Amino acid sequence: MKVAVVGAGAIGGFYGLMLGRAGHEVHFVVRGDYQAIREDGMQLISPSEGDFQLSPVNVYRDVAELPPCDLILVATKTTSNIDLAPQLAKVAAPGSAVVLLQNGFGVEEIFRKQLGPSVHLLGGLCIVSVHREGPGVIHHFGLGALNVGYHSGAAGEQSDVETMIETTFREAGIELSIMPDLITARWQKLVMNIPFSGLTVLLDSGTRALMTHPATRTLVRQLMEEVEAAATLCGRPMPAGYIDEAWAKTDGQPDYQSSMQVDFKAGRPLELDSIYEAPLAAVVAAGGAMPKVEMLYQSLLFLNQRNLQQ
Amino acid sequence: MKVAVVGAGAIGGFYGLMLGRAGHEVHFVVRGDYQAIREDGMQLISPSEGDFQLSPVNVYRDVAELPPCDLILVATKTTSNIDLAPQLAKVAAPGSAVVLLQNGFGVEEIFRKQLGPSVHLLGGLCIVSVHREGPGVIHHFGLGALNVGYHSGAAGEQSDVETMIETTFREAGIELSIMPDLITARWQKLVMNIPFSGLTVLLDSGTRALMTHPATRTLVRQLMEEVEAAATLCGRPMPAGYIDEAWAKTDGQPDYQSSMQVDFKAGRPLELDSIYEAPLAAVVAAGGAMPKVEMLYQSLLFLNQRNLQQ
Repeated sequence: MKVAVVGAGAIGGFYGLMLGRAGHEVHFVVRGDYQAIREDGMQLISPSEGDFQLSPVNVYRDVAELPPCDLILVATKTTSNIDLAPQLAKVAAPGSAVVLLQNGFGVEEIFRKQLGPSVHLLGGLCIVSVHREGPGVIHHFGLGALNVGYHSGAAGEQSDVETMIETTFREAGIELSIMPDLITARWQKLVMNIPFSGLTVLLDSGTRALMTHPATRTLVRQLMEEVEAAATLCGRPMPAGYIDEAWAKTDGQPDYQSSMQVDFKAGRPLELDSIYEAPLAAVVAAGGAMPKVEMLYQSLLFLNQRNLQQ
Repeated sequence: MKVAVVGAGAIGGFYGLMLGRAGHEVHFVVRGDYQAIREDGMQLISPSEGDFQLSPVNVYRDVAELPPCDLILVATKTTSNIDLAPQLAKVAAPGSAVVLLQNGFGVEEIFRKQLGPSVHLLGGLCIVSVHREGPGVIHHFGLGALNVGYHSGAAGEQSDVETMIETTFREAGIELSIMPDLITARWQKLVMNIPFSGLTVLLDSGTRALMTHPATRTLVRQLMEEVEAAATLCGRPMPAGYIDEAWAKTDGQPDYQSSMQVDFKAGRPLELDSIYEAPLAAVVAAGGAMPKVEMLYQSLLFLNQRNLQQ
């Protein structure tokens, strides 16, 4: 298999290296880390999977340089999607599968508008604990499952594409599941992402403190309930007790910084488009509202702009 | 007239000094500034009113030391009201008038519960630009009007009390107006206080930046609209166009820090009780909600606690 990976951060690096180790021909498109990866290759550090070195690496600065691939993983920040989608459309061959390993909501729509009709488009939700230690160096702490759902493409080939992807990842040691409903899964992931991505930035706090103070604990719950009600209004109801489970899970977790908080502190743009803007637009289009989610989004737009100007 | 002033910050200092200059016997209760005021007296610096020195000053550390007074001005932060009210009740003589020169909503209820039935209680909204330069030193930049509304007291004496207060302040050079409806006036003042007190703290920003970014500009307007709708629900509708006027006025103002922002930066407790908690409780009791105001309050509770612990 020829595999392209756009973005070699923690997520792209981990799945790309796992596929490379399984013998697939992997091509990475990276920006800032290009020179370092070209010279030193890439490295996976994983207590559970074993360490692995990939060198030399097929690495490019630009999507336009990619050879035709069977599978294209997109693991960049959503903030660059508007620019990336038309570039990717030029190199995604008919019959190939593009899998968006991205956070949030509505990301598939941006790519679908640009991709040819016979290119398969899927979304993936990653359940993995990984960290980019440095250019091309990915530290894997645990987990690794990938839930993939078919979004759109050439009619009649969905099942074949799903099987191809499932087989490829499973043979590479990754627990891949095919989800029957990608959009519902994306709403479900927002139940955690919407409160914690934003509040950790807005209140400059880890998750434990937010879950400890009674006022913010209530606020987290209310934000989750707004997301659940919005999903129902948009025709994607969650299973009964979904929020209670997410809530209990959060209570059991150690303190952590959200990736949005990490981005904020590093002065990078925040993924507000996919985590806030797109779900808010969906619920407004359905005749509803998420007032506290909207206020969080409004506050983050202000903070993000000031942060990028500094 | 014997006048007591509890709190000799900018507001209490200004009105107390103006009454002292007019020849009234003024007694100040202060905390941190006690020693300095006792030794050096108090001073008003005012381009419009002229400078004025009061020395020696009748100054006390404790409300319990006050002699019986005809008029008691309360100009402390609302955060100490719960402790102050029972102390004041012990010294407020029958027939005397207590005027709360405080921000927010619901402050009269806290004092009313403690004061004897024949003590008159009023609320005052100050329209004045003053700054406490140091202990007992008050710099007056402009304005000075005081709008006072009767809250409760001995039946049948309201008119006499209002005339006494009006005469006393007017003769001291202060433009005092009697408001027919104190509660409506307090709701109206919240239209400005609720968005700007909280957002300047939450987003660590002056008012100009908040009114410039389209997202926070919309948010300010939405918070004002929640307050207006809440006032209507609580039976205190505002005049048509009230918010538009407040809006236009804000647009014309230079950048400023809210007093809540000043308190926050100085590590002092925030007046969340009167500006957020009490109006939120009132609207919930009336069967309504102010979701974005509530979220602002929840966030400020978290920030205030962390700020005081640091």
